[in-house]
Amino acid sequence: MSTKHFFPHSEGVVVQGLDSLVARNSHLALDAPNKVVYSKTHHPSKVTVISGGGSGHEPAWSGYVGDGLLAAAVNGEVFASPSTKQVMAAIKHVPSDAGIILCITNYTGDNLHFGLAREKAAGMGYNVGILRMTDDVALGRKQTENTGRRGLAANMFVLKLCGSAAEAGYDYDKCMKIGLSVNANAVTVGSSLDHCHIPGREHHRSVPQDTYVLGMGIHNEPGLHEISPIPPVEQLVGDMLKYCLDPSDKDRAFVEFKQDDVVALLINNFGGMSNFELEALTSVSRKVLERDWKISPKRIYAQTFESSLNAPGWSISLLNISGIERETKTTINTLLPLLDMETTAPSWPRNGYRDIEPVKEKAQLANDGGADEVAQKGPKVDPTLLDSALRTACNAAIKAEPDITKWDIQMGDGDCGEAVVGMCQGVLKKLDAGLTKDGSFFHILDEVGEAVEEIGGTLGAIISIILASFTTNLRQAYSKNESSFAIDTKSASQAAGAALNNLMGYTSARVGGRTVMDTLIPFCQTLEKDVDLAKAVDAAEEGANGTSGMKAKFGRATYVGDKGEAQDKPPDPGAMAAAIFLRGLLDGMKK
Amino acid sequence: MSTKHFFPHSEGVVVQGLDSLVARNSHLALDAPNKVVYSKTHHPSKVTVISGGGSGHEPAWSGYVGDGLLAAAVNGEVFASPSTKQVMAAIKHVPSDAGIILCITNYTGDNLHFGLAREKAAGMGYNVGILRMTDDVALGRKQTENTGRRGLAANMFVLKLCGSAAEAGYDYDKCMKIGLSVNANAVTVGSSLDHCHIPGREHHRSVPQDTYVLGMGIHNEPGLHEISPIPPVEQLVGDMLKYCLDPSDKDRAFVEFKQDDVVALLINNFGGMSNFELEALTSVSRKVLERDWKISPKRIYAQTFESSLNAPGWSISLLNISGIERETKTTINTLLPLLDMETTAPSWPRNGYRDIEPVKEKAQLANDGGADEVAQKGPKVDPTLLDSALRTACNAAIKAEPDITKWDIQMGDGDCGEAVVGMCQGVLKKLDAGLTKDGSFFHILDEVGEAVEEIGGTLGAIISIILASFTTNLRQAYSKNESSFAIDTKSASQAAGAALNNLMGYTSARVGGRTVMDTLIPFCQTLEKDVDLAKAVDAAEEGANGTSGMKAKFGRATYVGDKGEAQDKPPDPGAMAAAIFLRGLLDGMKK
Repeated sequence: MSTKHFFPHSEGVVVQGLDSLVARNSHLALDAPNKVVYSKTHHPSKVTVISGGGSGHEPAWSGYVGDGLLAAAVNGEVFASPSTKQVMAAIKHVPSDAGIILCITNYTGDNLHFGLAREKAAGMGYNVGILRMTDDVALGRKQTENTGRRGLAANMFVLKLCGSAAEAGYDYDKCMKIGLSVNANAVTVGSSLDHCHIPGREHHRSVPQDTYVLGMGIHNEPGLHEISPIPPVEQLVGDMLKYCLDPSDKDRAFVEFKQDDVVALLINNFGGMSNFELEALTSVSRKVLERDWKISPKRIYAQTFESSLNAPGWSISLLNISGIERETKTTINTLLPLLDMETTAPSWPRNGYRDIEPVKEKAQLANDGGADEVAQKGPKVDPTLLDSALRTACNAAIKAEPDITKWDIQMGDGDCGEAVVGMCQGVLKKLDAGLTKDGSFFHILDEVGEAVEEIGGTLGAIISIILASFTTNLRQAYSKNESSFAIDTKSASQAAGAALNNLMGYTSARVGGRTVMDTLIPFCQTLEKDVDLAKAVDAAEEGANGTSGMKAKFGRATYVGDKGEAQDKPPDPGAMAAAIFLRGLLDGMKK
Repeated sequence: MSTKHFFPHSEGVVVQGLDSLVARNSHLALDAPNKVVYSKTHHPSKVTVISGGGSGHEPAWSGYVGDGLLAAAVNGEVFASPSTKQVMAAIKHVPSDAGIILCITNYTGDNLHFGLAREKAAGMGYNVGILRMTDDVALGRKQTENTGRRGLAANMFVLKLCGSAAEAGYDYDKCMKIGLSVNANAVTVGSSLDHCHIPGREHHRSVPQDTYVLGMGIHNEPGLHEISPIPPVEQLVGDMLKYCLDPSDKDRAFVEFKQDDVVALLINNFGGMSNFELEALTSVSRKVLERDWKISPKRIYAQTFESSLNAPGWSISLLNISGIERETKTTINTLLPLLDMETTAPSWPRNGYRDIEPVKEKAQLANDGGADEVAQKGPKVDPTLLDSALRTACNAAIKAEPDITKWDIQMGDGDCGEAVVGMCQGVLKKLDAGLTKDGSFFHILDEVGEAVEEIGGTLGAIISIILASFTTNLRQAYSKNESSFAIDTKSASQAAGAALNNLMGYTSARVGGRTVMDTLIPFCQTLEKDVDLAKAVDAAEEGANGTSGMKAKFGRATYVGDKGEAQDKPPDPGAMAAAIFLRGLLDGMKK
């Protein structure tokens, strides 16, 4: 685990962070001395829901302040409970005539400081209660009989449903009842590849390579088991889910999940996992839930909800919404909308479960019928001439393969010759199948383009682009004047010039760069200027030959083996292949 | 940099990740073979905005698909461009009669593959254009004259404003014009503490300790400078901002910022920074922008917009909205609403800049006037008796300090005696100032409670809770029957019993745990049962003395120096302090 940070210690960092959040959310206010973020829009006729705890769990807790979620959040220093005075300050910023619920994770300091605040506030006449969130299943009943279980990411469900219930105008008792039932129907288990590190503190230890910690908390606790080697991910997720769901684990089995129960899944990033892995872990969790437990969650959430600084870990939380329905007599049809209810809290995910109406209108080219029609349209050319030109070009390039490969081995990875052969054989196969027989020029160009794309890499892309652009330019000229347009050297020359200009927008390689552009640029420019294919092919050949001894400036060849003296260097294989192909085209047209 | 992952390689991970995103967003659809995420609700009469690129940048690009942002996103493998075929698939999923804009970061592969797709789609009759996003300022004009600059997180501005413009029904030319102008008025510079690591690949190198990389990209590029030691954070941010803003840096100064220009700030997490540090870096960025450049951003965004897997880095992006206004003649009053426009894209931040109406209604106790009144109410007691009791108790505890400290040094950190003295001196000071003179019992208890809170730690919290709860219970009894209520041993005994029960909800420590509960539990239970203060104090003393030789089960003492034999162990200092105080109270009442 890296112990590097931009902030050398955490002093003052908490308030700077809260200040940033409040600065970009107009509904939030900050009481900096008390590290309390509170809502300016909380109405005192609605139940106040407050949460909080140590910092280092961002976006918890302050990111959840807003209409439909928390009225305020109280933040301690990193992994340390806020003081009673801070909690009192929060209560006084968002008092309520309907009652105040303090949702706390069940850690010693939070219990005592929020507890004392509750007692003091009650003494002052506030109607205030404590809701302990205790979803962790890493430790079983026996080990937690004294202290109770700790709160992990499923407490997001408690906050959201309590917050929505308060927003909906439910009274204190109903909000508290729902909140308690949400907690009683939620389970979470965490896993991490390592601990996190707190800026400015000593690092206690790193988890060894090829080892992960099962049953990890969010305060650098040791976790339940260190498991090595790290098993395949589906097995790992399966092991995690057993802690949450196995009814035969009598020391756990904290929540009963019956067949067809409506379940929500929440995947929490401890802060240091890439979204790349987190999203995929979410998919694996869904898959294993379905496979092993026949559970298809009706709601899925995945993001950094409650972090452990930048720990490379995550947790799975499950909420049995049907369990809440059974306990509270609040129906699924009420509970799901509460879960989906819009909130202004910045860090709650957008509701992705809206009813949507898929757009049925199609664009003109939407079903490709139009596109296919376009492809077939256009002028006809002499099938024999075109067949001969393409065959001769392909055969010439295939014949040159040993040279192309040799040059490429000297300077690159040696696969250029093979790629060119593959492409040419593809074209020959299409010719054998009668590609040119109806002389549909644009369609033939499209098909050749498909074959060129198969070369792949930069060479394939560049030739494909100029060919596609050439074809498009001809098509546009044709569509402007269908009756008088003809495929001839003149129209082709203009299209080639335009295609080159277009291509130069996609690549920065130019003449002298030891790429296929050393062939294409002189070819197209000569063709455009002189309207003479023979001259253009001469220019292409000259350009390709000129790459002998040239230092690479672009692409792969710039960092692969370009160490020899200039005079030793063979020509660029791509440039040569293109020139050989073009010469073949010309030869074939003369036959 | 850790090379540990839950997925041992990236094969198949991209599609699993996209599948997770689509599963929880009803408006999204996935074309898995082509790794294209597209919107089901994009109307073909509106301009289509498509983006994409390599994976490993989540939530880019697919997290931005939705009404008011992208119509589709095309995803390659990790840090590799999608193929032309994939881009074509995206175009065909969300075609438009109004035109299609492909927003691409300016990397070689993306240029070629999106470029070829553009040419092919144009050839098929689609109206399609490419918008290159090039906001990086790490390299200057000279070094980028061939290739152009690369795209970093400010391309979020391009996507959002193009997407909103399309949603608003602007035509292709207007959308493209705005998009190009956004890009021309945006700058980004990145910094990182290390590179990221791709699952299954070799790790190329780690950045040394106390070194950071300035001008870092999001593909593990080497970056512009490695700087060691890491400077103080304000200096570091100042250095970054110079690359973005310094008009005298002739090789850069890509965007002109005039006085009073309207500017947006976007802070991007490369994926591995804690939110804790990222939010604080956002505050520092605001501060340095204001201090060095007199820029106060009108809009601020901070989150993981475009990651580099889990790289521990971040970037600052600035957008000169006034510059766009000048170039496009689109006013600020149009551009800001476009930036703020609601979108269904899951990963765009909620608009925090809504006009809000702060709630003016106050709860009954909102301004504390009520609470103060409550505090002063209640029965009177004999001032002399109470003064004597408290003084005797405080003096007894102060006198015992050497013993308390001695016991605490043997088992804890030795500060217990000092804390008790501080608390008692606080109470004595209040007594000297006339605390008891009007005999207002509840008010006196509140004040003593304030002093106890100052002890801090678990001891302070526990005594504070029981005292506050005791007071609240008496207050409630009083308010039920103001005329007949009296403070006597009976009412106090009942309140003490209730307070103890309440306290036991906040701590799991019980008798035998070697804590202050060994004093408080027998005291309150005896008082409640026998209604006799002398007996209760005897029980308290017995309980406290019983902690001698006892092993700690709770709190700090469980992991600090509990190694000796049982018979060597002194009594628990907190338990003893409480017992001494209670004996003092009794003695003082007898005087």
